[in-house]
Amino acid sequence: MIQDVLINKLKTIVGEDNVITDNNYIHAAETTNYRTVQSIALVIRPGNVEELQQSIVKANEHKVPVYPVSRGCNWGYGSRVPVADNSILIELSRMNRITDYNEQLGYVTIEPGVTFQQLFEFLREQNSELILSATGGSIGSSLVGNAIERGIGTGLYADRFSTVCGIEAVLPNGELVASGFGRYGNHIASNVYRWGSGPSIDGLFSQSNFGVVTKLTQWLMKLPEYFQLVAYRLKDNNRLPALIDKLQDMSSSGLVRPTITMYNDFRVLSTVTQYPFHTCTPGKTHPNEVLDVVRNTTPFGPLASTWNGEISIRSVNQEHGKVQTSIIEAELRPFVDELYVLEIAKEEMMETLHNHYKGITGDRETDALRSYLFRKYIGIPENTPIKQTYWRKRKPIPALMNPDVDKCGMLWISPIIPFTGEHIGKAIDIINNIVYKYPFEPAISLQCMTERAINIIGSINWDREVDGEDELAEQCYAELNATLKQNGFFPYRDTTMGMQMKTKAGIDDSYHRFLSNIKHAIDPNNIIAPGRYNIL
Amino acid sequence: MIQDVLINKLKTIVGEDNVITDNNYIHAAETTNYRTVQSIALVIRPGNVEELQQSIVKANEHKVPVYPVSRGCNWGYGSRVPVADNSILIELSRMNRITDYNEQLGYVTIEPGVTFQQLFEFLREQNSELILSATGGSIGSSLVGNAIERGIGTGLYADRFSTVCGIEAVLPNGELVASGFGRYGNHIASNVYRWGSGPSIDGLFSQSNFGVVTKLTQWLMKLPEYFQLVAYRLKDNNRLPALIDKLQDMSSSGLVRPTITMYNDFRVLSTVTQYPFHTCTPGKTHPNEVLDVVRNTTPFGPLASTWNGEISIRSVNQEHGKVQTSIIEAELRPFVDELYVLEIAKEEMMETLHNHYKGITGDRETDALRSYLFRKYIGIPENTPIKQTYWRKRKPIPALMNPDVDKCGMLWISPIIPFTGEHIGKAIDIINNIVYKYPFEPAISLQCMTERAINIIGSINWDREVDGEDELAEQCYAELNATLKQNGFFPYRDTTMGMQMKTKAGIDDSYHRFLSNIKHAIDPNNIIAPGRYNIL
Repeated sequence: MIQDVLINKLKTIVGEDNVITDNNYIHAAETTNYRTVQSIALVIRPGNVEELQQSIVKANEHKVPVYPVSRGCNWGYGSRVPVADNSILIELSRMNRITDYNEQLGYVTIEPGVTFQQLFEFLREQNSELILSATGGSIGSSLVGNAIERGIGTGLYADRFSTVCGIEAVLPNGELVASGFGRYGNHIASNVYRWGSGPSIDGLFSQSNFGVVTKLTQWLMKLPEYFQLVAYRLKDNNRLPALIDKLQDMSSSGLVRPTITMYNDFRVLSTVTQYPFHTCTPGKTHPNEVLDVVRNTTPFGPLASTWNGEISIRSVNQEHGKVQTSIIEAELRPFVDELYVLEIAKEEMMETLHNHYKGITGDRETDALRSYLFRKYIGIPENTPIKQTYWRKRKPIPALMNPDVDKCGMLWISPIIPFTGEHIGKAIDIINNIVYKYPFEPAISLQCMTERAINIIGSINWDREVDGEDELAEQCYAELNATLKQNGFFPYRDTTMGMQMKTKAGIDDSYHRFLSNIKHAIDPNNIIAPGRYNIL
Repeated sequence: MIQDVLINKLKTIVGEDNVITDNNYIHAAETTNYRTVQSIALVIRPGNVEELQQSIVKANEHKVPVYPVSRGCNWGYGSRVPVADNSILIELSRMNRITDYNEQLGYVTIEPGVTFQQLFEFLREQNSELILSATGGSIGSSLVGNAIERGIGTGLYADRFSTVCGIEAVLPNGELVASGFGRYGNHIASNVYRWGSGPSIDGLFSQSNFGVVTKLTQWLMKLPEYFQLVAYRLKDNNRLPALIDKLQDMSSSGLVRPTITMYNDFRVLSTVTQYPFHTCTPGKTHPNEVLDVVRNTTPFGPLASTWNGEISIRSVNQEHGKVQTSIIEAELRPFVDELYVLEIAKEEMMETLHNHYKGITGDRETDALRSYLFRKYIGIPENTPIKQTYWRKRKPIPALMNPDVDKCGMLWISPIIPFTGEHIGKAIDIINNIVYKYPFEPAISLQCMTERAINIIGSINWDREVDGEDELAEQCYAELNATLKQNGFFPYRDTTMGMQMKTKAGIDDSYHRFLSNIKHAIDPNNIIAPGRYNIL
């Protein structure tokens, strides 16, 4: 329990309204998409850096751990639930300023409370030609949270962490530290250059617990004059390895930037419909049969092939684009079952952005699939991706989705795989075989973020209101992770369940000792998010 | 002075032959391209990781600092001279294995002793289609040294540090730490993915003193089927800002990857000739007059415009290439005085690589400039760039160049500038005005490594055998750095002279305190390269 004297001090610092002890609020914050037992002592919502600094200093004095979240929409990874018991949850949603913006050089500087929707609206107000592709989360997700957890978007700027710089963070002692050239008073290049001079510390603040990130610069992509998507479908999973090798070759030759995304059948279908409980029963119906039923009873269903992929192509005019896509088409066609090229000019993209901003529907877009695909790439935030968390729910998807409160079960499996057909084939087989067995339906996307590695972003989804499914999902998750690791496939991002499993199993490698050593020096009372990424 | 007991222990560890106390050798190692006073106690050359680990443990026990260098060819930045006095110099030249190589995924894993020439020869032996563009150094420079000092090449992989992963380093306590997935025993993605899981520590080992890097993976570029250089010249420096803005626009639109390099007149001329002492006198002849003389009396001289630039373009075939370069040409032509497109097919590149490897001269290449330009991009290591260190020498450039021993004066000025015409114009004016005043002749290249920032890589060159020039160069360097900083331009890389100036002036910002805190935890006896990048 937290002492009243600390609570009162925190009230003085952030204001009474921003110290939350309400049971319902706390109970919701203690809830994620899988079983957890950690309790939250109270919630604070600092309104600026100074309030955050003072709060951390006080928590440090009282040796009470804090757990910072930006917007807390980290579904399937642990949401707002701290790794350690009895923490103070720090919600940074009120720190939501966009403090810098540069159209020519293409960046915004943002605080952790800034959401995808807020950035979208800000850029529309400027009539900007800059975009940030949407993520797999919601319109209310934090950009900073997404970036420092090394989350993934679509297209050229998919690897968020590679497109941020100039991080500022509050350290456990309350000091504010700036990375790169941000340390200097009159830095004019801190937003455009990552490394600065001397050691680069940005990496220390990603997937970690060395400080609370309060600001960073996110680079944005300029809308191209002409934009195309080469979309393709593959029916036979056995042809996947050959396709992957072809895509790798096209990437390393420079023909396509590694802006390749692929989705499996369940990934597509679970965002447009739910499990067909009217004809199928989990545990009795094989996932392949589920697939047949859904394909034949869902709009879009027949469009969801075994694998569905896109390559995004930027061009400076139509001729430039046609030459690029005609070469890609010729190279790729022998490796896929269907292939088509979608195109859009800058004028139409700007109109689509404007109409979405103004709430104008029924624009000149008539092809719903084309519209959906492009909207994702040009950075229109949508809640569609989180529909998949309701895949196994017995009730319809609500208008206002809240996967935590609605007891949607979800765990992400996200290994990094060398970009070869052999490795991908093996990893996909492992995932399908294990997930089918339990049985769940694996929703998988492949993000080729460089010409050398593919992120598999797979999830298992279940209904936490069904007795026994939480346990089943945990077993499935544990077996999956163990088998992937035996094969050398490690996750790019971990769930809090995964972190706790690792800490329990014990870690003792030199990387871990090195980081623990740093942690003890920076955070001697182990105040900031203890246990996060196993750094204790 | 170092105790005999430590010397004897080191001899036991690395062998008698690899503990060097010879005065001539040590005197050479204490010499760089500007004045230093730091002495070296002795030199050791460990042959493998274990010997390095044991040596560091012993040095730590005796509290004697060590200063690791890979090949030590860090001319103009401090060569092999430690920042702290009375250090043990650790030369890693004997650790020169290439431990992994993957043609499909495009990488090699290398130890610090591996040189550009050695990698070139290795790749030729495999008949590989992978290349690494040459750097501004010599054929005997270390790849690892270049990468962890965040050095710069040419073309797509110019930003070396962005194309390395899987760093291994020996810590001050003798432990070996691996970054990314390398911490795991059966990691198969550690060479293809940078971040791993949890905090990324790679940045801590660049431009720093937290450990001794013993291995890293360098990504390599695949030779394109068809390669072009759009080469251009600009006569009037006043037109530079407009050209820079155009190049930025072309980069951010995706028309060109930010693979843009530009050289000023002195940068080109100082690599093909020397100061015209027969008609000019430093201190009396204005640099502009020097330029006129050299242009008119040197082969290639008339080709060296005020600014000379290249954009490299990869294509999958000739048609693809022609479309790309015709658009670039049309956009760029109004902003430059001359423009021409050079092209080369993969077959000829492979032949050029093969001939160079076999020592075959007189190949089918007849255009010397074309040949020189392409050789740089396809990764043929040459010593040409270091000729510029002899610019102000009164004697001819020797066949075997050694800028340290030959008393060539050089200091690099390397600020990062936002990629706008206004900023570049201002920075170039500052450099020209100050360097002209002393007077030296500024050799400048501009590397546009992203669409947001330009690295200015400028040098002042002098003759250390002329009385007073060392002092003059120091004053020039101090004034330049101070003025650039006043304007918000900070260096991407520092000289040991710069580091000492900063330590003397005193540093007290939160970034510095954060790093010192880490340094004390990791290296309590301050053993590894104390003072390097001002981390004490």
